[in-house]
Amino acid sequence: MSTPAAFQTALNDLETPPELQVVPQADTVEVGVYILHRLQELGVKSFFGVPGDFNLGFLDLIDDYPAIEWVGNCNELNAAYAADGYARVKTGGVGAVVTTYGVGELSAINGIAGAYAELIPVVHIAGFPSDQEQKDKPLLHHTLGDGRYTVYAQAAALFTCAHTILNDASSAAAEIDRVLTDCVLQSRPVYIALPTSTVYVKIPAHRLRVPLPTLPPPNDPRGESAAVAEIVRAIDEAKGGDVAVLVDVGALRYGVGEEVRRFVEETGFAVYASPMGKTVVSEAYERYAGLYTGATTRPEIKSQIETAGLVISIGAVKSDLNTGNFTNKLDVGRTIELHHTTTKIKFSEYPGIGMKYLLPKLTSAFAASSLSMKKSLSNPLPRWTYPLPEEPDDKTISQAWLWARIAEFLLPKDVVIAETGTSAFGVLDIPFPADAVFVSQILWGSIGWSVGSTLGAGMAARERGLGRTILFIGDGSIQLTVQELSTMLREGLTPIIFLLNNSGYTIERALRGEHRKYNDIVNWGWPHLLHSLGDVDGTRTKSYVTTTKPALHALLTNPTFAAARVMQFVEIRVPMLDAPASLKAGTPVGRKW
Amino acid sequence: MSTPAAFQTALNDLETPPELQVVPQADTVEVGVYILHRLQELGVKSFFGVPGDFNLGFLDLIDDYPAIEWVGNCNELNAAYAADGYARVKTGGVGAVVTTYGVGELSAINGIAGAYAELIPVVHIAGFPSDQEQKDKPLLHHTLGDGRYTVYAQAAALFTCAHTILNDASSAAAEIDRVLTDCVLQSRPVYIALPTSTVYVKIPAHRLRVPLPTLPPPNDPRGESAAVAEIVRAIDEAKGGDVAVLVDVGALRYGVGEEVRRFVEETGFAVYASPMGKTVVSEAYERYAGLYTGATTRPEIKSQIETAGLVISIGAVKSDLNTGNFTNKLDVGRTIELHHTTTKIKFSEYPGIGMKYLLPKLTSAFAASSLSMKKSLSNPLPRWTYPLPEEPDDKTISQAWLWARIAEFLLPKDVVIAETGTSAFGVLDIPFPADAVFVSQILWGSIGWSVGSTLGAGMAARERGLGRTILFIGDGSIQLTVQELSTMLREGLTPIIFLLNNSGYTIERALRGEHRKYNDIVNWGWPHLLHSLGDVDGTRTKSYVTTTKPALHALLTNPTFAAARVMQFVEIRVPMLDAPASLKAGTPVGRKW
Repeated sequence: MSTPAAFQTALNDLETPPELQVVPQADTVEVGVYILHRLQELGVKSFFGVPGDFNLGFLDLIDDYPAIEWVGNCNELNAAYAADGYARVKTGGVGAVVTTYGVGELSAINGIAGAYAELIPVVHIAGFPSDQEQKDKPLLHHTLGDGRYTVYAQAAALFTCAHTILNDASSAAAEIDRVLTDCVLQSRPVYIALPTSTVYVKIPAHRLRVPLPTLPPPNDPRGESAAVAEIVRAIDEAKGGDVAVLVDVGALRYGVGEEVRRFVEETGFAVYASPMGKTVVSEAYERYAGLYTGATTRPEIKSQIETAGLVISIGAVKSDLNTGNFTNKLDVGRTIELHHTTTKIKFSEYPGIGMKYLLPKLTSAFAASSLSMKKSLSNPLPRWTYPLPEEPDDKTISQAWLWARIAEFLLPKDVVIAETGTSAFGVLDIPFPADAVFVSQILWGSIGWSVGSTLGAGMAARERGLGRTILFIGDGSIQLTVQELSTMLREGLTPIIFLLNNSGYTIERALRGEHRKYNDIVNWGWPHLLHSLGDVDGTRTKSYVTTTKPALHALLTNPTFAAARVMQFVEIRVPMLDAPASLKAGTPVGRKW
Repeated sequence: MSTPAAFQTALNDLETPPELQVVPQADTVEVGVYILHRLQELGVKSFFGVPGDFNLGFLDLIDDYPAIEWVGNCNELNAAYAADGYARVKTGGVGAVVTTYGVGELSAINGIAGAYAELIPVVHIAGFPSDQEQKDKPLLHHTLGDGRYTVYAQAAALFTCAHTILNDASSAAAEIDRVLTDCVLQSRPVYIALPTSTVYVKIPAHRLRVPLPTLPPPNDPRGESAAVAEIVRAIDEAKGGDVAVLVDVGALRYGVGEEVRRFVEETGFAVYASPMGKTVVSEAYERYAGLYTGATTRPEIKSQIETAGLVISIGAVKSDLNTGNFTNKLDVGRTIELHHTTTKIKFSEYPGIGMKYLLPKLTSAFAASSLSMKKSLSNPLPRWTYPLPEEPDDKTISQAWLWARIAEFLLPKDVVIAETGTSAFGVLDIPFPADAVFVSQILWGSIGWSVGSTLGAGMAARERGLGRTILFIGDGSIQLTVQELSTMLREGLTPIIFLLNNSGYTIERALRGEHRKYNDIVNWGWPHLLHSLGDVDGTRTKSYVTTTKPALHALLTNPTFAAARVMQFVEIRVPMLDAPASLKAGTPVGRKW
């Protein structure tokens, strides 16, 4: 059996019990400091954002707060992306971003909405005018000029699961706690508008002695028992332990990774993952069988899961790009779905029965039953490999060769961020080594996201002691958010950035406008990028251009390169009209080249 | 008297009567093409945006439309800023930007909100799912995963004056016309969600034979007459024609520049401008007396306007940074305010009486009255100059010296964009030559705006045959949006970009945190920037670093540099804690260094 470390969610690293960390010495704290205590409790060690005149007072408090580091970003969208990437890799903690009133928070809103879609707990603090200004409504800069002072908060409410404007200091602590609790329990972003008149108001600190709840409310015991019994019966009916566990991203986001681990280890059931669920279970786990992506699944994997006697789906998010464009063919009559707040057993549903408490009960019931895990372990598994292809052209870097070669390059515990586009499809083609972490934005799919996210992921990876941070991104996508590379440099991160230069928006050429002007971009002087973005004397980074297989192979084989001790940027020139296998296979945006 | 060309709004350049331009030959047109016809009618020759899979069909139509050029941007916020800058410099036309569903449109929303605040007519077209998808609500990428398909349109509605989702092709033409009419008449952004199922539906073209209205509804004749009589009486009561006209940005946005010109030329009244109104009247106009910024106004100007017998304020937007932080001291009993939809005469108001039609009546009434303009012309005017200061340090580039030297460098018809921060304050310190155009975002104040805006301003300036495009921006602000420099390069624009390198967010140091970490930024390798952003072989741009007065003086004196035939980037190193005179004088963010 694999070790617990093989599971991403098992790395939840609130090392010190929260109650020991954050209780302040004094009886009162400033509202701003109260927020910082709570964020520290929720695992925040790096705070992202951009200064602006409505948040400078709060920034002073961050700057003075010993346990949290200020990470100033180049712009607010990147800051939101960074908080998102940070929360993804922290796994169990939240990300935090601060912006200024209006101009700043609206710039960040796409990043916040993406966190909402992808179930990422991000706390967005927005500087806000004073209570007096809210009453008098002067025509301040950063307002729309029409007196609608709360309009940005209205916008934020559309893309967050909880929000508050902290005008009343006497209720501020309770409001902060309410909103942060929702952030954690719903795994969604929240919004706190922090008026300049509130930041420094002192409030009692006593609430901080009670940590925020991080567990969902318990299931109804009788409903839970009934569901467990029903599932055990279904397992028993699946002949020979022919049960497939399909792990999706909800398992990670709602914090049941450890429960999933115990369950699959106890049962020995074959484990599959959706694209968004990739690496929730370590892909080196011996009973891990690969990715299930509906019609585009590799045939040997597809037949195995689709003909299984029973499929137990955990935390499914059935989006187009997570299901091979809705081509999943899992028979409802042979499928059990475990979710955060509900359980579906074939044709019936158990509302309110959530997986956090159900899974351990299921594991215990299985262990205590007459069902034998031996049967499951003896079931053969497809072995997912992606060897280097034999190609007549031994120079041109094909997508098929590229990703196979990358598969060899990856190391255990690497954190791999893949931009929406050919990069994400390419990374989905290859198996990852033990405990490597896959980070992508498959539902939201906002191009440019990965640059900011890599900053946050890199900070979190360093805090958690994970391996290298590796980004795969195209020449079109990186142009949206490129400036954040300079923040990585300042923070001393050493990501490897693989830039796939395929002369524009290849993912869109696959859809429409193969040779249209709108899919062309400016070709940048990529090898000079880090030089201009902050490595002024050229001593702190390395940049490479590779145009052939032998050159890229040599670079990837170089131990100094692989050690990733400085920030490295690798331009890989690939043909404009080539695509990874999974994209060619006909995903939603698939056209065969 | 000056020529009409001395007035920015007189340059309204819809050269060909709209009805001759856009009527299609066919009886029907695709909905997407209908939009393009209307946008062409409203002066759009450059269309900004970023491709995405929900807008690619519309992009094909743009690409195929002969009269409109596609200008692909690096990201959507920059695209919105570009459309904003384009509309500002087109003066009378609109800007247009297209984004994709969710991820794209939300990235642009800060730019759209800024256009709302600053009264800029920008048309935002957002790609949208098909009508069938809106009904079935599949879990598509770019959705929030919760079926709220119209949530982005709800957000857009908060920051636009009109919006529509074009699901019904049969009403599409009327809806497009309604929304575009509001855009023009209210001079605010609008939002059109364009479903993929609607773009190519053919609709009757006959509506296109009738141009959209561009003039507001007429005033009530009796109310207007009463107001005119009252104003003439007030002018008469102001002894010796001692009347000051204070021109603000509303005059430009609501298209009364020509009417203002005729009025001030007829009357000879002294003309002042607010910061946002700078260059609405050419600053070389002989009766132009300078900027009025409340308490921070230069003393000789301040006393003249504040003691005038009457002030006629035109199109005022009384925001903090437009009024010296609300220190304007204009006696209500001696002030007349002309607005888009109302007129205020001392203590009384004439609701519904707008300046577009009132101003010509006022000019005529004045001409026909016994009031003599001679009296006004003989009134002395303060002469606004900003000579080079004598400073003991003949090397270090002080802000005081810098802006004086820039004043000498500017040429007639230059388009000068100033970023929020020290740049905008510096530019406000100096008078502009004839017909030079000032572009800034004084109310909204979103840092980074000026880079995208310079792209749009540059495109519009080229279309209008204006002079050089010149950007002043700080090292902090440019980092937010820097990538759009590459689009300027691709489009063959030749802006001069003056980068004031003062080691971080100096405007914020003036407020708080003078030496706080959050006001520091990464120092980039500025001279290599254009190289990495697209001038790969280094032949199409020039970059300079100037650290001393003599070096900068020499550069500015160089005729090849001044001719601006290639894109040029000038890093000017200035002390971290120095500020332009108007900022030192104590504006809202003012601290004296």
